[in-house]
Amino acid sequence: MFGADEIIIDTKDEKIEENIRSVVDRFGGKFSIRSGINARRFVKDFQGTIIHLTMYGETLDTAIKEMECTKDLLIIVGAEKVPAEYYELATINVSVGNQPHSEVAALAIFLDRFTKGSWAHRTFDGDVKINPSKKGKDVQIKKDQTDEEP
Amino acid sequence: MFGADEIIIDTKDEKIEENIRSVVDRFGGKFSIRSGINARRFVKDFQGTIIHLTMYGETLDTAIKEMECTKDLLIIVGAEKVPAEYYELATINVSVGNQPHSEVAALAIFLDRFTKGSWAHRTFDGDVKINPSKKGKDVQIKKDQTDEEP
Repeated sequence: MFGADEIIIDTKDEKIEENIRSVVDRFGGKFSIRSGINARRFVKDFQGTIIHLTMYGETLDTAIKEMECTKDLLIIVGAEKVPAEYYELATINVSVGNQPHSEVAALAIFLDRFTKGSWAHRTFDGDVKINPSKKGKDVQIKKDQTDEEP
Repeated sequence: MFGADEIIIDTKDEKIEENIRSVVDRFGGKFSIRSGINARRFVKDFQGTIIHLTMYGETLDTAIKEMECTKDLLIIVGAEKVPAEYYELATINVSVGNQPHSEVAALAIFLDRFTKGSWAHRTFDGDVKINPSKKGKDVQIKKDQTDEEP
């Protein structure tokens, strides 16, 4: 998912877990999901660079220039208002525009910029593969995946 | 909002309209919103380039290279499954990755790439301005906006 390896969600949500796992099963890749994880503890224990995406942060351009890219990266986004302590726990607070915006949009742009768009060139070993097409849908399904339960 | 001028929504939603207008009132800019607009008619009447974002489309890199940037741009994203006819009405179907993803993420990355990140350098004339900050919040409120109703 735009170069990310895993998503960690504070609130337990089995529906989201199932959805994501079903997509990964079909489309391939190693993306994983865990929900019901204590966010505060996870962030405190994390070894690496912690980015908190917020409209109050340092500009994206400046932040990406200053970041150490050799370390593991944890990116924090809040679906709700993020408690003040995360601003302190973060290695750096980064803004994708200093105006209100979707945190999904911020995360997507951050990952696209950080990976320099390289996520688009990754291939996955899934049963379903979609080929680019100007009009219509070009879907490839692996033949040996049609085995049914007896 | 990442360089866009307006959002048009098929389903009438006064709550979203209010939210967006309140953000624009406070933060400035000319971004507008209309909901309850017949999408089919709007797309058919649109004069300019019509981009439909879908995981089945042409790759982002190829599409952006081929696009005429002088025309007005309409970008279609579906919160739900998009009816087949939009694939035909579109000038080009464009994929931000040929895997399932958030349409908000796709729209954000498309706009960021299309504007070459220039949206980030735009300034707005709002009452509220947030200055970039590595830690904490640096919010500027226009002084002359404290006038109250008598």
